[in-house]
Amino acid sequence: MEYIKNYIDENKERFLEELFGLIRIPSISSIAEHKPDMYRAAEYWEKTMLDAGADKAEVFDTEGNPIAYGEKIIDPKLPTVLVYGHMDVMPVDPVELWHTDPFEPVVKNDIIWARGADDDKGQSFMHAKAFELLNKTNTLPCNVKFLIEGEEEIGSSNLYKFCEDHKDMLKADIFLVSDTSMIAQDTPSITAGLRGLAYWELEVTGPDKDLHSGIFGGAVANPINVLCKMIADVLDENNHITIPGFYNDVIEASDIERKMMGKAPYNEEKYKEAIDVKELWGEKGYTTNERTWIRPSFDLCGIWGGYTGEGSKTVLPSKATAKISCRLVPNQDNKKISKLVKEYFEHIAPDYVKVKVTEMHGGQAYGCPIDLPAYKAAERAFENVYGKTPIPVRSGGSIPIISGFEHILGVKSILMGFGLSSDAIHSPNENYPLYNFYKGIETIANFYLEFVKEYGLNV
Amino acid sequence: MEYIKNYIDENKERFLEELFGLIRIPSISSIAEHKPDMYRAAEYWEKTMLDAGADKAEVFDTEGNPIAYGEKIIDPKLPTVLVYGHMDVMPVDPVELWHTDPFEPVVKNDIIWARGADDDKGQSFMHAKAFELLNKTNTLPCNVKFLIEGEEEIGSSNLYKFCEDHKDMLKADIFLVSDTSMIAQDTPSITAGLRGLAYWELEVTGPDKDLHSGIFGGAVANPINVLCKMIADVLDENNHITIPGFYNDVIEASDIERKMMGKAPYNEEKYKEAIDVKELWGEKGYTTNERTWIRPSFDLCGIWGGYTGEGSKTVLPSKATAKISCRLVPNQDNKKISKLVKEYFEHIAPDYVKVKVTEMHGGQAYGCPIDLPAYKAAERAFENVYGKTPIPVRSGGSIPIISGFEHILGVKSILMGFGLSSDAIHSPNENYPLYNFYKGIETIANFYLEFVKEYGLNV
Repeated sequence: MEYIKNYIDENKERFLEELFGLIRIPSISSIAEHKPDMYRAAEYWEKTMLDAGADKAEVFDTEGNPIAYGEKIIDPKLPTVLVYGHMDVMPVDPVELWHTDPFEPVVKNDIIWARGADDDKGQSFMHAKAFELLNKTNTLPCNVKFLIEGEEEIGSSNLYKFCEDHKDMLKADIFLVSDTSMIAQDTPSITAGLRGLAYWELEVTGPDKDLHSGIFGGAVANPINVLCKMIADVLDENNHITIPGFYNDVIEASDIERKMMGKAPYNEEKYKEAIDVKELWGEKGYTTNERTWIRPSFDLCGIWGGYTGEGSKTVLPSKATAKISCRLVPNQDNKKISKLVKEYFEHIAPDYVKVKVTEMHGGQAYGCPIDLPAYKAAERAFENVYGKTPIPVRSGGSIPIISGFEHILGVKSILMGFGLSSDAIHSPNENYPLYNFYKGIETIANFYLEFVKEYGLNV
Repeated sequence: MEYIKNYIDENKERFLEELFGLIRIPSISSIAEHKPDMYRAAEYWEKTMLDAGADKAEVFDTEGNPIAYGEKIIDPKLPTVLVYGHMDVMPVDPVELWHTDPFEPVVKNDIIWARGADDDKGQSFMHAKAFELLNKTNTLPCNVKFLIEGEEEIGSSNLYKFCEDHKDMLKADIFLVSDTSMIAQDTPSITAGLRGLAYWELEVTGPDKDLHSGIFGGAVANPINVLCKMIADVLDENNHITIPGFYNDVIEASDIERKMMGKAPYNEEKYKEAIDVKELWGEKGYTTNERTWIRPSFDLCGIWGGYTGEGSKTVLPSKATAKISCRLVPNQDNKKISKLVKEYFEHIAPDYVKVKVTEMHGGQAYGCPIDLPAYKAAERAFENVYGKTPIPVRSGGSIPIISGFEHILGVKSILMGFGLSSDAIHSPNENYPLYNFYKGIETIANFYLEFVKEYGLNV
C-alpha cells in the first residue's frame, strides 16, 4: 500500500514531535505528586484523538487516575476495533544511570531515548497516527474506539469497574493492543497467550518460640524442615506438579501452534549464558519456550525462617514462611487454582505443625486462538509490511487486564507488539527504534484494511 | 556422714557470704570493659582456694581472660580429682526485667537471686566449700586440683591451648564438673553424655540475577525449590538421616542405660503444652528423651532467599541459603561428619544450580560410661545424700570443652549438676535454691570419700 508509506514518510517528523509532547509529561502513576501530570497526559490524548479525526473524545475521572476515551463511529453496522493502551509510565529511579533526561526525548542512532519511548507511549501513539492516516486519506474502513488508561503500571485497578460501568460504550469486535514485544526487528510475532498467576504465602509454625536445638533437636518438628518437605513434594521427578486436579482445566496447545512456536529463534547456549546457568530445567516433554509459554509453573519467590545473620546460631526456629507463585495457562481459573493449592497444603499439613496458607493477588491467563479472524488479519498485516508471517508466541508473564476485557466485555484482544527486548522498559535508558515506530504505524494501518476483509468488506 | 552435715550447718552463713563476694564481681566475659572484673574474680578464686586449704594457687594469663588454678597434693601416689568450673557469667540484658540488682545477690523464699547464682558461680563454689570441709575436718582422701576459667560463656577458646601447655599440671584421674542440671530437687541425675555439633551453610545459586518469574518460570531451576528438595531428602519417612555413612560411628546406648534413662520423669502432655505443639515428632523407634539424648539430629537453623517483604513480588530468585546443624552423639567425630555432609550436598547438587557448602564451627560429643568407677562413686554420693539412685541422663546440648579435656588430657569428666530447669540461667532473674547449694556441698564431699573406695582406699 504505497499511500500508507507515503503518508508516513511525509509526516514522520511531525509524528515524532507529537509523540515527544506526550513523553515530556512525567506521568508516573505510582508517585502521587504526578497526579496532575496524569490529567495533562489524558488531555494530550483527548486532543490527539480529536486532531486525528475522532468524532468525540473525553477524559473520564475514576477513583484513581483519569482515562482518556475517544471514538469514531462511521456506521454502527460496521465492525468496531477498540485500541487499548496506557499513558502512565514507570518511575525513573535510579535516575543517575540514565544517559539523558528521561522526560526529554532525544533521537540518537535512530533510536528514541526516554521513559515511555516504548512502554507504552511510543507503542500506543502509533495507533493514534495510524488512525489519523486512515482518516486523512479517507480509507478508514470500520469504527474505531480508543481506551487509554493511566494505571497500567500499578495494576489497572480502576479499569475493571470502568469497563463494568461502560459496557455499551466499550462494545467492540476486537481489542487491539501494542504493549508487548516482537521477537526481533526483522522477525515479527504476535502474542497469542499470556500466563495467569496465583500466589500464596505459606507459613509453618512449630513450637511457639525458638528452641535450643540441642535440648529439643530430634524430638520436636522443625518448621523449616517441614516447609521444605511440603514444597519439595509438589514437583515429581519429571517436574510435573503433583497437586491433585492442578492440570484439570489446562487445554493443550494444538500441534499446529506448537509447530509455529517452534519456529521462534532460540539459542540454548545464549539463553544459558545470559543468566549464567550450566543447564536448563523444566517439565519433561516440553521445549524451553513451551515451558514458559503454554505450561503452568510452580516457583518459590521467597523463603525465610530462623536465624539468618552471620555465623552459626544453633536454634530450632518457631516459624518458617514461603512465598509461592504459579503461572497459569489459558482456561485455568486463577481463583479455582488458588483455592485448590491452599486446600492441598492445609490437607497435607502434618499434625506436629500449624500451617497457614494466605491467598495473595492473582490474575487470569489469556489465550487468543490463532485461527481467530482478527488474528489472521494481524498476521496478513505483518506479512504485508515485513514480508514474513509473524510467529505466534506466548508471554510467560501476565497482563491481567487483557483477560479482564474478555471476562467483563466478552471481547478478545490481539497483542500486536512492536517492542524489542533491548528496549529497557521499566529500566534506565528506555528506548524505541524509529524503525519500529514507523513500521508499527504502517502495520496497524494495514491491520484495519485486512480486518474488514474478514467481514466480507473490501476497501 | 554426720560430720559433713554438721560442718555445713555450722558454716552455712559464711559460705553464703563468701559466695556473694564472688557474685558481686560483674565478670561478664562477652563485654570487653569487664576485663578487670575477670581478674578480680580470678584473684577471688585464688584466695578462696588458699583459704580452703590449697597448697598453692595462681592466676594464669591467657590471650583472653585469666584462669585460676589451685591444688592440694597430699601424696602423688593417691588418685587426683580435678574440679573444673567457670567464673565468667552471661550479660544481664534486658536488665529492666530483673526484679533485683543482678550483681547484688538477695535471698528470698530460700532462693538466691543473682546473675551467676547457679551458672556457674553458685555451682562451682560448692566445690571450694566441700574441699574446705574435707581439709578442715582432716578427711580429704586424695589430691585435688581446681581449674576455673573465664571464657566458658564465650566458647573457652583459650582453654584448649592452656590444656595443651599444662598437661602435667592438669594431670588427674577424673574431672569433676557442676555446670549442668538435675531432673528435679528430689530427683538427682548425672549427665552421662553431651551431644556434639556440626554446622553448615548451604548456598544454592541458580541464575546470576533475580529473574522475572513469568518470563523464566518453568524453564530455569528455582534455587529455593532446589534447596528445599535437597533438604527434604535428608530425612526418610522414619526420620532417619539418609546421608550415606552418617550413622557409621554411632555406638548405641546399652539396654541398661536406656532402661535407667526411661526412669527419668517425663510428661508428654506437659512437654507439648510448654512449647505449644499438638504432636511430637522424631526418629522412629526412640522415645522423646532418647531422641535428644542418644540420637543425632538434623535441623535447619535458618533459611532465606528471594523476596521476603510484604505482599507478592513475583520473582525467580538467584540464590537461596540455609543454615543447617546436626547434633552428634559420642564416637561420631564432628570433623568427619562435617566433611561427610559437605561432600554429600556437593555430590547431589544438580547441574542446573551451583552449590556451595561452608563448614562452620562444631564440637565433639561426650559420653561417660555409667560403669566408670568415678561414675559409680558419684552415684553412691547422691544415694548417701538424697536416698535415691541418680538417673543417668544425657544433654541434647553441647559443652565442647568437656570432650576437649578427654581429647587433650585423656581424662573423663563426671557431670554432677545441681541446677534446676527453673534457675533461669542466661536469663533475667537467675536463681539458685539454698537447698541445692548446701545439698550440693554435702554430695560433693561424699563423692571424694566414695571415689577413693574405687581405688581400694578406705577412709
